[in-house]
Amino acid sequence: VNLQWALDRVRTRVREVLSERDVPAAVQAVLEEAHAILDEDITMCRTIGENGQEVLQSCHTVLTHCNAGGLATSGYGTALAPVYVAAEQGHAIHVYADETRPLLQGARITAFELQQVGVPVTVICDSMAAWTMKKGKVDVVIVGADRIAANGDTANKIGTYGLAIAAHHHNVPFYVAAPYSTFDYDLPTGTDIPIEERAPDEITCGFGRQTAPDNVDVYNPAFDVTPVELISGIITEKGVWYP
Amino acid sequence: VNLQWALDRVRTRVREVLSERDVPAAVQAVLEEAHAILDEDITMCRTIGENGQEVLQSCHTVLTHCNAGGLATSGYGTALAPVYVAAEQGHAIHVYADETRPLLQGARITAFELQQVGVPVTVICDSMAAWTMKKGKVDVVIVGADRIAANGDTANKIGTYGLAIAAHHHNVPFYVAAPYSTFDYDLPTGTDIPIEERAPDEITCGFGRQTAPDNVDVYNPAFDVTPVELISGIITEKGVWYP
Repeated sequence: VNLQWALDRVRTRVREVLSERDVPAAVQAVLEEAHAILDEDITMCRTIGENGQEVLQSCHTVLTHCNAGGLATSGYGTALAPVYVAAEQGHAIHVYADETRPLLQGARITAFELQQVGVPVTVICDSMAAWTMKKGKVDVVIVGADRIAANGDTANKIGTYGLAIAAHHHNVPFYVAAPYSTFDYDLPTGTDIPIEERAPDEITCGFGRQTAPDNVDVYNPAFDVTPVELISGIITEKGVWYP
Repeated sequence: VNLQWALDRVRTRVREVLSERDVPAAVQAVLEEAHAILDEDITMCRTIGENGQEVLQSCHTVLTHCNAGGLATSGYGTALAPVYVAAEQGHAIHVYADETRPLLQGARITAFELQQVGVPVTVICDSMAAWTMKKGKVDVVIVGADRIAANGDTANKIGTYGLAIAAHHHNVPFYVAAPYSTFDYDLPTGTDIPIEERAPDEITCGFGRQTAPDNVDVYNPAFDVTPVELISGIITEKGVWYP
């Protein structure tokens, strides 16, 4: 949603200038609008991170799923922003990163960016998250969001829903961190959020190597919807929203 | 446990014969004992499958984790035995197979063996199981077991515990299928079952391709323990055991 929003915004700005047939000014306008968006995004992510400090108090470990960090946004990201702000303030947080099958954004991106800035990170398979909670290793879960319905139901990367159930079972707080623009007030609940199903070979041949028999049937939903009952709160740049 | 048990049994038999210094007779004894174990195992798996029919009544879909089928045992396996017996009796069952990271036994073995005998199977990532249940696609979960404590707590492939929590959340019955010999009466509960931690590269480089940054920390428990509170029953060759 956000990428399309940014393109639309730049396009609108360019059309205004192009109506005067001034191409160099249009090129300049593209650059200025892009930089403005970048600056706003950096500020927004940072504010999400600052607002997230209230849920990190007395937490030493955070489990996250997929990637909602600096490589998915500008600056500090969304789900990882509270971790980066905490690290900046000298509050040490250890992150458990679900590898996030099938495309492994957690192992490939989240682990990488945390490692780059020196935040301790441990990679686990998605199926290990519940056991990791059981062993007392997880103080709080923070994930990003693709779309949030008006009631708080949250669509995010597949696996988020199972993680929320596991967190609920272990009384581990489960937070969503996202820009306020992720709320879709046209959707009363998450029930109507369409779920993309992706190609089987992401699962059967995801690493350049076939890992399932030929022609096997596959179910590959890209997202799931976590009902608001399983969500402790939603961290936005406008503050933390509680049910 | 079972492999060691079978080796011990053959070794004991051979020692008896070798004490008479009759080598050809010892060779024959190895073969006879191995065939006897094979025959017993085939019968035992079949009986587990027959006993499992009582939990499959009115079920059309079974979700399983890892592999506890004909390629892990003799004959019909344990968790898959009820499915094979149902198929034999003309009761159509569709299986959802968790791929089972990190080693993908579900995608590589369970899907393969079901496909070979024409039982419909759909592969999913482990992180998709909860959502698959939410969509009403799972009537019952059946998994194998590595070790069962006296109270019913069950050690099995990592991911089983999270699956049991998800099943509980959706009121989907969750069964363990295993030979009666899997019960370890020396262990009152599952709390004391040691959990093997395996090499990081099963997760970071599991398919001959690096999928996480160099030197990243990894937590790779091979098993987890599902408490008996989350288990609807245990299907053995002696019958179905309910809490």
